Amino acid sequence: MVYFDNAATTYPKPESVISAVSNAMRFYGANPGRAGHDMAFSTAEMIYNTRKLASDMFGVDKPENVVFTPNCTYALNCAIKGLAKKGSHFIISSLEHNAVVRPLETLKNRGVCDYSIARVEKYDGETYMNFERLIRDNTVAIICTGASNVFGKMPSLRGIASLCKNYGLKFIVDGAQISGIYNINCKRDGIDILCVAAHKGLYAPMSSGMMIINGDIPLETVVEGGTGSYSAVLSQPNNLPERFESGTLSVPLIAGINAGMKFVNRVGIENIRSHELSVVKRINNELKSIPNVIAYTDFEAEYESFAPIISFNIEKMNSEEVGRLLNENGIAVRSGLHCAVLAHKIYGTVETGTVRIAPSYFTNKNDVNLLLKSIIKIAKG
Amino acid sequence: MVYFDNAATTYPKPESVISAVSNAMRFYGANPGRAGHDMAFSTAEMIYNTRKLASDMFGVDKPENVVFTPNCTYALNCAIKGLAKKGSHFIISSLEHNAVVRPLETLKNRGVCDYSIARVEKYDGETYMNFERLIRDNTVAIICTGASNVFGKMPSLRGIASLCKNYGLKFIVDGAQISGIYNINCKRDGIDILCVAAHKGLYAPMSSGMMIINGDIPLETVVEGGTGSYSAVLSQPNNLPERFESGTLSVPLIAGINAGMKFVNRVGIENIRSHELSVVKRINNELKSIPNVIAYTDFEAEYESFAPIISFNIEKMNSEEVGRLLNENGIAVRSGLHCAVLAHKIYGTVETGTVRIAPSYFTNKNDVNLLLKSIIKIAKG
Repeated sequence: MVYFDNAATTYPKPESVISAVSNAMRFYGANPGRAGHDMAFSTAEMIYNTRKLASDMFGVDKPENVVFTPNCTYALNCAIKGLAKKGSHFIISSLEHNAVVRPLETLKNRGVCDYSIARVEKYDGETYMNFERLIRDNTVAIICTGASNVFGKMPSLRGIASLCKNYGLKFIVDGAQISGIYNINCKRDGIDILCVAAHKGLYAPMSSGMMIINGDIPLETVVEGGTGSYSAVLSQPNNLPERFESGTLSVPLIAGINAGMKFVNRVGIENIRSHELSVVKRINNELKSIPNVIAYTDFEAEYESFAPIISFNIEKMNSEEVGRLLNENGIAVRSGLHCAVLAHKIYGTVETGTVRIAPSYFTNKNDVNLLLKSIIKIAKG
Repeated sequence: MVYFDNAATTYPKPESVISAVSNAMRFYGANPGRAGHDMAFSTAEMIYNTRKLASDMFGVDKPENVVFTPNCTYALNCAIKGLAKKGSHFIISSLEHNAVVRPLETLKNRGVCDYSIARVEKYDGETYMNFERLIRDNTVAIICTGASNVFGKMPSLRGIASLCKNYGLKFIVDGAQISGIYNINCKRDGIDILCVAAHKGLYAPMSSGMMIINGDIPLETVVEGGTGSYSAVLSQPNNLPERFESGTLSVPLIAGINAGMKFVNRVGIENIRSHELSVVKRINNELKSIPNVIAYTDFEAEYESFAPIISFNIEKMNSEEVGRLLNENGIAVRSGLHCAVLAHKIYGTVETGTVRIAPSYFTNKNDVNLLLKSIIKIAKG
């Protein structure tokens, strides 16, 4: 099978990640921070080293500010609900995933807080104005994705960050589609909370996420429980990272994050990005020349940036049908709405959905050739 | 290292579990329910089969009623906060873990709801009366652990279940220490929501939990996001299990739960229990004969039941110090409060904590001999 569904989760995983997970189950089998025996200590050390790798990669001061989460969705929930107070207002971009929209919609339905959607435009300047126009006295944060998980479109995070700074707002970034592909430095880029899907661009096992908190930000908790610390205190402790890591941590997955980040560091973020971009640019160019094919991304556009994720459709065909036919040709893509209906409203693809192509560092020329050959065949009908 | 910290997480894991996790990373690398390609289908099938194993093991009608969670703490948070409404009241046992107490304490501090603590007595009849006495008009649920994670004490769940039935309360059970060791059937036992730590008695990888919902119970969500279903709807869908499984599921861990449950089924819950009980009974008997040692569990007591978890102390020594010395002898135990300060209040061990011994199916005679030899040495001073 040729796999182009890497925006859902990268596949294959590096061998070093698979063996790190197995090794963790054999050698780091203890609950860290809970017991005073050697295996608990060595497990805690591995986990600390992983936090350190992440704090270095994403530019925050302290390893303790790296919180491990079951996935990026959970991290986004923690960030949003952590800041939400009765009467708060949030602004999100029109490219946000349901991982951002649904928590806010839930809070809205519960009468806790409200949110507005700022349309992401072709030109960043217009996008900033859309955001700025929506700021209210009770606005607490702007939430923006690093890249659309459907169309690859990247709003300028630094610009939005400076808007946040000017208005005293917190800036939450959904880094699911950019971590490991773009260089993100929370301090430099003005990001207050970065949410990461480590199982995507960091090549970690499925369902490993991180919430990276840049500095000292008071956040309410979503889940509370035993933290192995301050056990005699009935209320949730304030110290990081335990405040947000109740219950047993997934030591094997964290070992996988560790190995995944080392893989990314070894290969180099720049090399990963340039490889993936060259793959999608080639595919996108070819798609534009195939009759009946609609490609949505314009890599040549001035003043616009795109992550290596593209969407297309074939005239008069539903994206699900195209996905099914590609599967028959041994190609894995994702079709439909990709849990991001807002983005489809802009591109006029709510009815059809889109077929999404997302490469990884492991995507090679043969994969691309087979994909293009198959699309040509399907488009011919 | 000889490992007696199995109440934190079982170690070692069966080889079949380790290889299931590795295989999942190689062959089930897709996001199930999100894409229409073969690997996504086969992944979805494996996950469905795992739900089926769990619904069979724990006696609920439908595999869909099995929700995978990052750990038992998360499951308990979902159950408690799922039922909590403004003005609700909960009753919990005095043996509860901080995974129960801290969510309730948080809800209380936020002015959402209140809770009372029913003391668990030597005799179940007295325990029921303690629970019954605390029931108010606004009580919505009783939460009780299947077994104390410190002293092994097991309140009679069936008795509390009938109390719940009589008063129209929901019954939430923290099954962290009993699943895989005792036969639990939600329908037969009158349990509405069972929370499971699969990485303990089911021998799954660390941080794999389940929330098992017996029937149709309306529950609010704690985390919302993309579910791969109803993507065009901005509010969280109502259907199970997606309602409680936003974001990417941990496919490797679920494969581990699958293999772990098969391991438990193969060995037999009765065989696991009788092995573990024979281990702790032998240790406990010997402990009682060692001068300066205080053992807290009385397996001979009529009308009382205990899971295979025991706690002890050595006179005039802090439990942490005993744990440290055992570690020097190559033995892993857990010392301290075990995230369950309420239970220590009953046994008078809040100041010292206790040293906890919890075997697994893999604990053998040599392990026990070394443990006892070491305790005798340490107790002599």
